[in-house]
Amino acid sequence: MLAAWHVARQLYRCRTSHLIRVRLGCSESQKKLAVFIPRRALSTFQPNTMASLDSITTSLAALSIKPTATIDHAATTSPATWKEAIIANESAPKSFELIKTLVYKPKTAKTATPVPVVVIARDATETNSSAIGKALNLKELRLAATDLLTEFFSLDKDSLSPLALNGQNFPKVQTIVDSSIASSSALFALHAHSSSSTVFLTGADILAYLQKLETADVKIQELDFHNLVPSLASATHTSRAPVKEKEDAKIEGAVQIAIGVKKEVDFSAWYTNVLIKADMLDYYSVSGCYILKPWSYSIWEEIQSWFNVEIKKLGVQNSYFPMFVSAKVLEREKDHIEGFSPEVAWVTRAGQSDLEEPIAIRPTSETAMYPYYAKWIKSHRDLPLKLNQWNSVVRWEFKNPQPFLRTREFLWQEGHTAHLTKAEADTEVLQILDLYRQVYEDLLAVPVIPGIKSEKEKFAGGLYTTTLEGYIPTSGRGIQAATSHCLGQNFSRPEMFNIFVEDPNDSTKKTYVWQNSWGLSTRAIGVMVMVHGDNQGLVLPPRVASIQVVVVPCGITAKTSDEQRAEINDACDELAKTLLKADIRAKADLRDGYTPGWKFNDWEQKGVPIRLEIGPNDLAKQQTLTVRRDTGAKNPVSLNDIGSTINALLTTIQSEMFTRARDAYNSRIKEVTHWDDVVPTLDNKGIAVIPWCEVEACEDDIKERSGRSAEPQDERAPSAGAKSLAIPYEQSRWTPIEPGKTKCPACGKDAKRWTMFGRSY
Amino acid sequence: MLAAWHVARQLYRCRTSHLIRVRLGCSESQKKLAVFIPRRALSTFQPNTMASLDSITTSLAALSIKPTATIDHAATTSPATWKEAIIANESAPKSFELIKTLVYKPKTAKTATPVPVVVIARDATETNSSAIGKALNLKELRLAATDLLTEFFSLDKDSLSPLALNGQNFPKVQTIVDSSIASSSALFALHAHSSSSTVFLTGADILAYLQKLETADVKIQELDFHNLVPSLASATHTSRAPVKEKEDAKIEGAVQIAIGVKKEVDFSAWYTNVLIKADMLDYYSVSGCYILKPWSYSIWEEIQSWFNVEIKKLGVQNSYFPMFVSAKVLEREKDHIEGFSPEVAWVTRAGQSDLEEPIAIRPTSETAMYPYYAKWIKSHRDLPLKLNQWNSVVRWEFKNPQPFLRTREFLWQEGHTAHLTKAEADTEVLQILDLYRQVYEDLLAVPVIPGIKSEKEKFAGGLYTTTLEGYIPTSGRGIQAATSHCLGQNFSRPEMFNIFVEDPNDSTKKTYVWQNSWGLSTRAIGVMVMVHGDNQGLVLPPRVASIQVVVVPCGITAKTSDEQRAEINDACDELAKTLLKADIRAKADLRDGYTPGWKFNDWEQKGVPIRLEIGPNDLAKQQTLTVRRDTGAKNPVSLNDIGSTINALLTTIQSEMFTRARDAYNSRIKEVTHWDDVVPTLDNKGIAVIPWCEVEACEDDIKERSGRSAEPQDERAPSAGAKSLAIPYEQSRWTPIEPGKTKCPACGKDAKRWTMFGRSY
Repeated sequence: MLAAWHVARQLYRCRTSHLIRVRLGCSESQKKLAVFIPRRALSTFQPNTMASLDSITTSLAALSIKPTATIDHAATTSPATWKEAIIANESAPKSFELIKTLVYKPKTAKTATPVPVVVIARDATETNSSAIGKALNLKELRLAATDLLTEFFSLDKDSLSPLALNGQNFPKVQTIVDSSIASSSALFALHAHSSSSTVFLTGADILAYLQKLETADVKIQELDFHNLVPSLASATHTSRAPVKEKEDAKIEGAVQIAIGVKKEVDFSAWYTNVLIKADMLDYYSVSGCYILKPWSYSIWEEIQSWFNVEIKKLGVQNSYFPMFVSAKVLEREKDHIEGFSPEVAWVTRAGQSDLEEPIAIRPTSETAMYPYYAKWIKSHRDLPLKLNQWNSVVRWEFKNPQPFLRTREFLWQEGHTAHLTKAEADTEVLQILDLYRQVYEDLLAVPVIPGIKSEKEKFAGGLYTTTLEGYIPTSGRGIQAATSHCLGQNFSRPEMFNIFVEDPNDSTKKTYVWQNSWGLSTRAIGVMVMVHGDNQGLVLPPRVASIQVVVVPCGITAKTSDEQRAEINDACDELAKTLLKADIRAKADLRDGYTPGWKFNDWEQKGVPIRLEIGPNDLAKQQTLTVRRDTGAKNPVSLNDIGSTINALLTTIQSEMFTRARDAYNSRIKEVTHWDDVVPTLDNKGIAVIPWCEVEACEDDIKERSGRSAEPQDERAPSAGAKSLAIPYEQSRWTPIEPGKTKCPACGKDAKRWTMFGRSY
Repeated sequence: MLAAWHVARQLYRCRTSHLIRVRLGCSESQKKLAVFIPRRALSTFQPNTMASLDSITTSLAALSIKPTATIDHAATTSPATWKEAIIANESAPKSFELIKTLVYKPKTAKTATPVPVVVIARDATETNSSAIGKALNLKELRLAATDLLTEFFSLDKDSLSPLALNGQNFPKVQTIVDSSIASSSALFALHAHSSSSTVFLTGADILAYLQKLETADVKIQELDFHNLVPSLASATHTSRAPVKEKEDAKIEGAVQIAIGVKKEVDFSAWYTNVLIKADMLDYYSVSGCYILKPWSYSIWEEIQSWFNVEIKKLGVQNSYFPMFVSAKVLEREKDHIEGFSPEVAWVTRAGQSDLEEPIAIRPTSETAMYPYYAKWIKSHRDLPLKLNQWNSVVRWEFKNPQPFLRTREFLWQEGHTAHLTKAEADTEVLQILDLYRQVYEDLLAVPVIPGIKSEKEKFAGGLYTTTLEGYIPTSGRGIQAATSHCLGQNFSRPEMFNIFVEDPNDSTKKTYVWQNSWGLSTRAIGVMVMVHGDNQGLVLPPRVASIQVVVVPCGITAKTSDEQRAEINDACDELAKTLLKADIRAKADLRDGYTPGWKFNDWEQKGVPIRLEIGPNDLAKQQTLTVRRDTGAKNPVSLNDIGSTINALLTTIQSEMFTRARDAYNSRIKEVTHWDDVVPTLDNKGIAVIPWCEVEACEDDIKERSGRSAEPQDERAPSAGAKSLAIPYEQSRWTPIEPGKTKCPACGKDAKRWTMFGRSY
């Protein structure tokens, strides 16, 4: 059968030129898997559970296959939850094995239709993409994105199963079957076109079903996964605290349960999976836009309330300007608008009638606000004017969007201030930058480096830009965390917005105001996820976690009496209440029909900092088991004075999370004085700090030369060439530059300041 | 000259047909003045102070008129601030009189160009629009709107002066001059094309300047205002606490200073003036959109923080959905979209490229959110789902916009919840309605009546709509304050968004979820302004005032020593700090260069609930004078335990403001059982509560019949026909309806429930 298949495969492949390209092109290319998102923007069009179940049983009947059982249950989003759901159902067989159905996409020219590889295996079977790729001579397998799943099966990954294959789609895909299925006597659970219904078939049944679909050209391929060489280990660079390592080992299954893709193996897939599984975000029917669900929006609310207090201390007031900007006003500042015009969204129609003039949706509000600053600022008594607004702005990116990091609409705050003197403006720029630093370091436990942007990288139309540079260890890339700009008098000068007051010291003279603008966006949430998340899912720093502690009742079995059960639940409820009184955001998870294991996994995915377990023994000893999300460390503690115990632990977690992240950042910042060391540093996921000449031409040159030698990037990967990230304020970290002696390693000119160069988002 | 002018006027008038129409149309028409807004969206294009001053002096020189003096000063927004600014300036003449320049617009066909009436008078001269109108045989004079001022003079009202008249605009207007100017020996202060510069001329100079502009057709007209019969008194229906009356008398000037237009005389002009002078809002270059300045936005923040706490108690979580909605999704629910489609704004272009499909900006988010509810709600365990978002929505009104009440973009919260049972949904609808009631009554001190909307008035696509009906005594109109809708299963049913769970009691049955949506918008702020504001300006209820108490140093004169001045200022500063410690939002106004009188006026316009004055004597007695903004009542209190004294006073003010407003509301609600009493009740600014049949045809009929007899409305006035406002829950307020016996006064059918009918916004 294998041989037959190979022939068929060759024939088939000849019909799909892009696959040839894959076979040539793959070797040099980096291993990156595409994201695996349970997206159902159009879920309302999907067959509902009942309907699907009926259709399945009918089609199986046609093949005279009679399922051992068919059941409906709560929707499931992972093998773990699926298993739970089945076990919870009386009419389910007592013994069964899960079938997993994975769809891979080989790299394909954008114009060509891909031939997905459908892998059907026992859930327990280790299915390693590169190993499969090797066996199929396709070295660039990536888990397929939702769009593709929808296109081929009109199902999401949680509803997928061998039964998703039919006469229409089978010829369009390559089907691989775990050979141990056929030989197995086990009963297998398959999704019936829905994550909330399950059909039970024997291995023989499954095979029979698939063989019915075979054509002269396209056959299924059985594969003995146990004889495949797993190359996973070599591909991973895991760096975790020993305790964590133990955890992984202990609940190997859970790693797969939790996120399905390892952070170190396929970072982008891992990232989006975490966002979905942690219930932070969902995809939206307008591409590039995302739904911020309460679990992520609450983090934004924490940031808002902290930041509002701080800026009000600086005399900043909140306000709201309209989202619309007239074309005339928007295009007033040429350099500025050049930076945005390609991304501006235009409203041209209202109801049935076209607008006389198209109206822009703000990409940022400088030009929308400053005509009014000119109107309101009439005397030096009106200065400083400090306004802030929390709003959303629209930048219609055509590049690949990424949740939180690059989206077409995003939430942010934008502060716009006007001052009498440059000194005042300069001071505020740094005050704000430091508030942003506190948001990242103290609230999100994410280390950042304050510095100033090069002329090339500064804000369009501004005088200078100060920045916080973050760093994502997994990708080895820098990321701009927040910026605070001094606009100088570029927007206030007469030919611009003409914002001036009479010089208080000389009423015959006019002083044009000095302006700043500064912004922090929801991107911060994405950076936090990337820095702290692990293969169990999200890891939340306590200060921004909407639930800091979850209390889970344990040791409840079928034998547990209702009294005992009630007693344990009450204890958990009581504990949560006690913690709430101690200003700890605590919750008792008393949901029926879910096992402790299911709950552990659920809250670990969502990154709750501390889990408290209470079982009969704990109750007897008046203690509870604390489990840290960040390290996995477990520790029984007394219920006496539990409030202060937990508060202390939360503080510890917050600071240790930051320390670990900061050490990781620092360990990747390399002082580089020879050009030859630059690219290796970058390739080693490092940031090269060089004594730089600060000449723009040199920056372009560095980007070009460092990009050239870099390995080709995944389509979703950020630019490969290194750009200047920041000129850090803390120059003392590196060997003092000797004026006239220290040279720029890139061009040999005199070095000015140590400057961070790196690949970036 | 008068005679000559009359002839010229007749000739001139023949060239302006619309004026004829005015003369015919005016008599029956209501006296309403257009709004008087210092709008300078394009202020950056305006001649700046210096330039204007130069140009003026040159042009005067050409007439060999030499100003006695010319000075620059801080921008001024009222006669009071202007006077202050001049006095503060050394180079200003010691004795002078202000010149006021008022521009009136006679009612004009939209298509025709109006002929504005420019009135130039001594500031002291009582200029009464109806009296002037009578004299000119133009009975519909309204203060001109900004657009018109910009069009004719490219100046705002604060920069206006006789010098704004020139060869171009003079023939296009009708110029009236206070005859007492020519005869006066006084020196007059005139704005020089800018509110921050002043020229001093004699009456003769002014007249000379104007006469140079006269043409054969168009002359100036001198008018002896003292011989005009003022009909103002008769036109006003003022109802104020005696104390307040005294206040008015005492600072007559201040009434005009404050708002310029009396609330009872020209409500809409008063309304917008209050918003501008209280610094709550500014007009924006995109029409129908407004800038919410900190003074109003802070009120919204107060509402947000209170409401967030309350809904979280109900298990509602905040989230954020994108502002964009695809056409397909938006148009899913037909009845629903019909209600909005004429007002939907469409994005069709991004950067330079047209979008494949136009994308809507949400007018509300039901259809944007519910596909995801269908996806997320898989089991009854997922219910109830309760999400809320604070965002802005866009409804491109083509009707005349009004700040806060009807704007193209507005801020609101929209809650969207899904429940297993109708009972649950019904309960929540009322829980939310009561939260809205508390926002209005407890925070804004605005009385509202909870009830249910008629079928005709309910939310498009919903099952039923509950509402809070507010009332604006000055206009005698009802206003919808907030609505809480039960959508029933209209959006969840299969052909719609197909949102269902398995019936927990019968897994073979599907239950379609019951949904609610509820919203509260910034309209609430507008209602609060209309209900509480007076002729001094805004009156803020303490609970939403961002500054509850302002402390003003008094009794400081030129003779005051620096030590004394410092002592008083320190005492004020100290007092403010003490109050802050007592959780009172207090501020000490220690601004230099402003007199106490100027500060009093400034804070009264802004509606700060309590003013505290400290002068040398107060200091000696260790006391401070409390002045209530709402009643004007003054009362000296000891500085001992001042915190609790003021807290108590704030509580009193809050509750008395509400009580007064509630009594005013109740006094206008009339039980009406005969049709003949309906229209008189409405015309008397009342709300008619009738025992209604609840038949839709009858409602249409009532609207038609009650509208017919109403006097014609100002273009900015809301609809004249009466519609059903609400069927109040508290039916017991009125005579019990006897089923079968009590008849609907409109159609004679059997009455069902007492229903409020009234004109409305």
